[in-house]
Amino acid sequence: MKQLEYVVLARRASQIMEELRKGARKPYSEVIDVSWGDPHRAGVKPLSFVRQVLAACLYPELVNSNKLPVDVRQRAQRLLGQCAGGSIGSYTATAGIAEIVHRVSEFITRRDGGAPSHPENIFISAGSQWALQNILKVLVNSKSSPKTGVLTPVPCHCTTTLSIMGLGAVVIPYYLSEEQGWELQVEELDRALESAKGVCNPVALYVINPGNPSGGKISPEQRTPKYIFVSKNMYHMVVFHAMLPVGHIQRRKSIQEVIRFVSEKKLFLLADEVYQGCVYGEKSEFISYKRVLAEMGPPLSDTVELASFHSASKGFMGECGMRGGYVELINLDPDVMKYIYKLFSKDSCAPVLGQIALDLMINPPQPGDPSYPLYNVETQNIRTMLVHNVKRAFEVVNSLPGFCCQPVEGGAFAFPRLHLPPKAIQKAKEVGLQPDTFYCIRLLEEAGVLISPGCEYGQKEGTHHIRFCIMTSEVMMEELLRRLTCFHTQFMKDFS
Amino acid sequence: MKQLEYVVLARRASQIMEELRKGARKPYSEVIDVSWGDPHRAGVKPLSFVRQVLAACLYPELVNSNKLPVDVRQRAQRLLGQCAGGSIGSYTATAGIAEIVHRVSEFITRRDGGAPSHPENIFISAGSQWALQNILKVLVNSKSSPKTGVLTPVPCHCTTTLSIMGLGAVVIPYYLSEEQGWELQVEELDRALESAKGVCNPVALYVINPGNPSGGKISPEQRTPKYIFVSKNMYHMVVFHAMLPVGHIQRRKSIQEVIRFVSEKKLFLLADEVYQGCVYGEKSEFISYKRVLAEMGPPLSDTVELASFHSASKGFMGECGMRGGYVELINLDPDVMKYIYKLFSKDSCAPVLGQIALDLMINPPQPGDPSYPLYNVETQNIRTMLVHNVKRAFEVVNSLPGFCCQPVEGGAFAFPRLHLPPKAIQKAKEVGLQPDTFYCIRLLEEAGVLISPGCEYGQKEGTHHIRFCIMTSEVMMEELLRRLTCFHTQFMKDFS
Repeated sequence: MKQLEYVVLARRASQIMEELRKGARKPYSEVIDVSWGDPHRAGVKPLSFVRQVLAACLYPELVNSNKLPVDVRQRAQRLLGQCAGGSIGSYTATAGIAEIVHRVSEFITRRDGGAPSHPENIFISAGSQWALQNILKVLVNSKSSPKTGVLTPVPCHCTTTLSIMGLGAVVIPYYLSEEQGWELQVEELDRALESAKGVCNPVALYVINPGNPSGGKISPEQRTPKYIFVSKNMYHMVVFHAMLPVGHIQRRKSIQEVIRFVSEKKLFLLADEVYQGCVYGEKSEFISYKRVLAEMGPPLSDTVELASFHSASKGFMGECGMRGGYVELINLDPDVMKYIYKLFSKDSCAPVLGQIALDLMINPPQPGDPSYPLYNVETQNIRTMLVHNVKRAFEVVNSLPGFCCQPVEGGAFAFPRLHLPPKAIQKAKEVGLQPDTFYCIRLLEEAGVLISPGCEYGQKEGTHHIRFCIMTSEVMMEELLRRLTCFHTQFMKDFS
Repeated sequence: MKQLEYVVLARRASQIMEELRKGARKPYSEVIDVSWGDPHRAGVKPLSFVRQVLAACLYPELVNSNKLPVDVRQRAQRLLGQCAGGSIGSYTATAGIAEIVHRVSEFITRRDGGAPSHPENIFISAGSQWALQNILKVLVNSKSSPKTGVLTPVPCHCTTTLSIMGLGAVVIPYYLSEEQGWELQVEELDRALESAKGVCNPVALYVINPGNPSGGKISPEQRTPKYIFVSKNMYHMVVFHAMLPVGHIQRRKSIQEVIRFVSEKKLFLLADEVYQGCVYGEKSEFISYKRVLAEMGPPLSDTVELASFHSASKGFMGECGMRGGYVELINLDPDVMKYIYKLFSKDSCAPVLGQIALDLMINPPQPGDPSYPLYNVETQNIRTMLVHNVKRAFEVVNSLPGFCCQPVEGGAFAFPRLHLPPKAIQKAKEVGLQPDTFYCIRLLEEAGVLISPGCEYGQKEGTHHIRFCIMTSEVMMEELLRRLTCFHTQFMKDFS
């Protein structure tokens, strides 16, 4: 049901694009699609280093071309030497190319301040969600009665909730605290677990850190009413609480609490950490579950079962279309590991270029490398663009009545709350849509902007949100804000 | 269990490769791996046109480079225009890039002599096996009692059997007739279906056409004993019935029989047609299930539910590592199609470069295109290489006592039968291995050749086989044959 709301939007967007291609006249010449966490779709340029190495791997004649930097060519040559038959067109081992798996474990060890990581615990997959599905298959007993339950955050992107339900398990929602910048609170985990009693058999806790779709740790004074601008005109019905997209970064203390919680409740911990590269705030720091667990020492570090996911689709690289991700598994029984190996075997192997993209993400050019200056400029530009985008987005939002804007640290999504006028809610009911879907479909039709409604991600009863990606080019963000402003004005006129 | 036999071999092969890298002295300097249907792994070169277009899509600076043929650059530019944000790093629609899906349907219509194909029935996936898993999920009720059954050929590659069992269904084996070149016989389907009574609830028939792992329609005179050379020396215990790898191509009449069978028995038809590009024999012709079904007319053409799978991993292209395949679905209920859409949605999308590889496979350069001459030379070379390989392989085999060799039409695998000496079978029992696995592991240790044992694919009780890929470079085939000959001599000495 939930998923279908977005499908309606996406299908209509395709139709509109087709109509535009066929010369239909509309107030816009193209659809801006910021409904995905997909930077390239939204105009962000791929990193040259990444694309150069991948192109040279695909077409090895380029290894001998002087058009590419020498470190690119060396890197491609080394990677090709690690592919069967020297071709990225060959299958790889089930867990991925052995050398890349090894370098992933080195990356994790480096990232986690020396907490050891072992290659045999790592599986490279066609994106992190694929790996998650395989781990869920191990956790979910589709035949059990009561059903298997998985504690899942709200809001949460729907690929995971669909996977859980698709396996015949039950989503046990725990609500992130919007007022605390979408913070995860252990008391809420307790409540959710309690609510599952008699309904299902909870076996796992799924956490997303940094958060998706949104989050943002903001200080109490930033949440005072002085930031809330209530207009004197018709627009005052709409209030956006733009909790800004830090992708709420969990603090060490909070992670420790969660680890103690899963240990006590005997839950498997699924840590979706794909946004770990999306931390831009000066004072923000990503700390992995794996690291905190290791540093807590025995008995926790020897017993808590943990799967940590990462991906080449997110961060500055944003290579969603390559399909490269990995999972690291901690403290799993050797027999379970064998079974997991079999599950991954069924999928043949992850796309080889996705595996290589992962390798490039975790081992970017270093100062002194010929590719470093350009790589550095490009990543700095993306950083700058992002900060600019969010600043501009919220300047514009603040200039409109009914919007509320918070300072920004970083991330990929905005998930502002939307107070809809009663007439709009009534109209949505009449046409059989969720109110926020109704808002989104009007925005799409009238302004050619595709964003996704909060109901896709789960939200507290009676609240409405929209989500859009802020990793866009500056030009696209400006155009998006222009269209949103015009649409919003008209929408409020229509439903005042 | 079955799968684990090959895992033992593959793991040992990795260890040996690692030992060689570290300088270990062995009778060989590298391991020849012909255990996969993976041409590039076995030394076949990728097609330049394919790699050039893919490289230009990855690194669009190449579109403006005069180093690449103009049709390559135009093709890349057109494809990039069909990617969101002009980048192959973006997600695509669930079923794949709309334009590519459309061209797949055009390809199918062309291939099938005009039998119409509709884009909305096609899903592009990360390889055909992934699509197959999604369709199986719809067919298998993991909670049902008795379990869901799927009629599956023996021999059959183990990814499919693992998928079926992994979903909690039962594999109902039907045996291909080795004596008839691994032909599918409807009487055997009847027998298999009968055998399932009281055991499971059969819902689908899985067929592989052209066959995998092997096949070969040979005339009765080719099967007379004059071809069987029984030596006067110790080797006479080993007889290879090399049914050659046409990947048994089903004739129209046989396909019609199968369609009538599934219609009568109310089975869903799963047609694995990934080897459709591997038809080299002058008189052989691939005819798709879809085409035959359409040409049989109503009521069959309106009612038989069919899923047909194809892939960029096989044929002359052999781009296994790209992970690009598709399924076409015929006569499915619209509600089931909606559910299948949801299943594919969970996987985000197929790797974009895999989608593009598929597009290049179904639309190769045409006479007159600047890339055509090279493309033509390369594909002709692969064809010639293959014919040469098989001819040489069986010359050598014929020069050894106990081998039997048949004329060759084409394909990717040999699956010869192996009559092992009783002492070898006894020894295998002692070490807890299947006899053919035992043979393969000795071949690996002593000669550095990795092939797979027949027990991986299923075989009649008491028979043993080996499987190896014949899509290799000529050099590799020669070396493989040299090593196999030496090993075989020694093995028979040891167990005579």
